[in-house]
Formats: sequence, structure tokens, C-alpha cells
Amino acid sequence: MTSPFTTLSSRIAWACPWYNIRQDKLLLPDGRPGEYNVVQHPGAAWVVPVTPQGEVVLLWHYRYTVDDWCWELPAGGLKPNHTPLQTAQEELREEIGGTAATWQEVGWFYSSNGISNEKAHIFLATGVTLGPTAHEPAEVMTLHRKPLAEALHMARTAQINDGPSALALILAEPYL
Amino acid sequence: MTSPFTTLSSRIAWACPWYNIRQDKLLLPDGRPGEYNVVQHPGAAWVVPVTPQGEVVLLWHYRYTVDDWCWELPAGGLKPNHTPLQTAQEELREEIGGTAATWQEVGWFYSSNGISNEKAHIFLATGVTLGPTAHEPAEVMTLHRKPLAEALHMARTAQINDGPSALALILAEPYL
Repeated sequence: MTSPFTTLSSRIAWACPWYNIRQDKLLLPDGRPGEYNVVQHPGAAWVVPVTPQGEVVLLWHYRYTVDDWCWELPAGGLKPNHTPLQTAQEELREEIGGTAATWQEVGWFYSSNGISNEKAHIFLATGVTLGPTAHEPAEVMTLHRKPLAEALHMARTAQINDGPSALALILAEPYL
Repeated sequence: MTSPFTTLSSRIAWACPWYNIRQDKLLLPDGRPGEYNVVQHPGAAWVVPVTPQGEVVLLWHYRYTVDDWCWELPAGGLKPNHTPLQTAQEELREEIGGTAATWQEVGWFYSSNGISNEKAHIFLATGVTLGPTAHEPAEVMTLHRKPLAEALHMARTAQINDGPSALALILAEPYL
């Protein structure tokens, strides 16, 4: 379906290395002039890592953005020329030192479509074994293995406070 | 727990009426200087509206940010001096012309903690009856009543492409 808006002009209003703000002048569906700001994000990948023992590897991750500790899955923004799967594989390796026997694409969703175009790509990694991590200086996290049923219960009862991680766990369940 | 980062200075790098970008200079956990950009958002509320007939009211909403149509629940950003519940009640009224017999707070999560501090507050509204809507000119959407089981199936199988709406439906299920 086509857009009910007509874009008249587009400019980058602000930028940082991870995303930028695109500011569009447009005609609203009723024909009147309007403006829309879009946080342009390259998208990101989340991994549900399941060990041969049926455990999910969760991260307890301090996030400067929210000044809070979050239960999360390994995840990261898409780098240039990286597919979502390549990003997922790199994040698994960097954040938990993991390699997986099998990879499955589970689905995707928009994480915050009121302001941003970020697409969250979800992967299930099974047969995951852990090794040395390669955290960046700004990444502060500890690893926790949880039985699959416990991780799913946490996701369904809002105990996983990173929304995309909670939804990723639930979307992966039918593939397990 | 305290932050492993030390904030040295903070400034608003860019702003629009709905959110702004806060740019902080800081010391990383290893003591080296760093910078962090935070999309500062007032937070938002999502409503799971259930009719006396056991249907969920979903929106098929065109989102300019992603140039796509999305399956969503009624939702909106928190206005100044509005609680999450007041915002949920206003959005139900404006977007689907709805009033509810009962309201329950279901939980909250961060929608996109890699870049933003947006908190998604989830409410369940039951006994919902529909009336005239009050859409803004930039809101392009149609209303669809779905049996609860079908809406939950859509949420669990990544057919609800707005992530927070999908997770909201799943979090509300135990309260129904």
C-alpha cells in the first residue's frame, strides 16, 4: 500500500555514529503541511542462545540510557555491510563468547515505531557453547544461565525489562 | 546499584516537541573518557482493550517513521503532568472512541534501551465499548476487532509488527 503522506523535502537534522535524525517536510493526509522527525537506525539483531543443557544465556546489563540494570539477550546494532545474521553471530561471540551449532531466523518487529525506524531481527541459536568474551569498555554485564522455562516465565511476567529481549524469547519458543 | 559510569557534563544536543537528544561526557568504567547520546523520551502507554464479547480492538496504523502499516494497540506518549494511566485512558478515547469498565496496570519495559530511555507502560482495559474517535490529522488507522485467542496468536507469531503492542498483549494474558 502507498503512503498517505507526501514527502516534500528531507534533511539530516542531527547525527551520531549510531543513528541520525531525519527531518521531513510533508503534506499530511488532509493536504495540510506538516513535519516529521524520524530516528534513523540501521536496525539491530537479538539472539536467543540455548545451550545443549536447555538453558538460556541471559545478560544482566547496565544501560547508561536508562541508568538501570536490564535483563537482556545478546544484541547489537547492524554494522555497515553486515546482515542481521552476521550481526547476531558477532554479538553472540563478543558478548558471551558463544558459538552455536544451528541458527534460525525467528522473525522481526519494530521496536519503537512512534519515533524510530529501528527493526529488531530475532534469531534462535541452539547448541551454544560459551568461551572468552570481548566486551567493549562501555559494556558492563554479567552472564546468567537460566533454565528455558524460567527464562520464558520471566519474559511473560515483565521481569525481563528489555522489551525486545522479552518478545524475542516468546517468539523463539515455538522453534524449540 | 550505582552506575559504573561517571557523568562529567550533560547538554541537550537536539530537541523536538516529542523528545530530545541528551549528550553526556563521561568516564567509562575503565576510567577513560567517553560520550553517550540518550534519546530522552517522556515514556508512553499502551492499552490492551477487551470488549465484553472477548474481542481485542487492534489498529492497522500507517507509521511514517517506518513507511509501513503496523498492527498496534492504542498507545501514545506521556504528556506533561499526565500519569501513564491518564495517558492510556486518553489514547483509548481518542484512537478508538473507547471507554472501559475496569483498568489494570500490567507492567512496563524499556522499548529501545540501546538508544532511548523510553519506558512502555502497559494497561489492560476490560468492558470496553466503542464510540466516536478523535484522530489527529497525522493519524491514519482503521479499527479491527479480533477474538482474544487470534490476537494472542498474532502476537506470539510475529504478526503484530509493533513490538511493544505484541509484548503488551502477551503480558496482559494472565490478567484475563
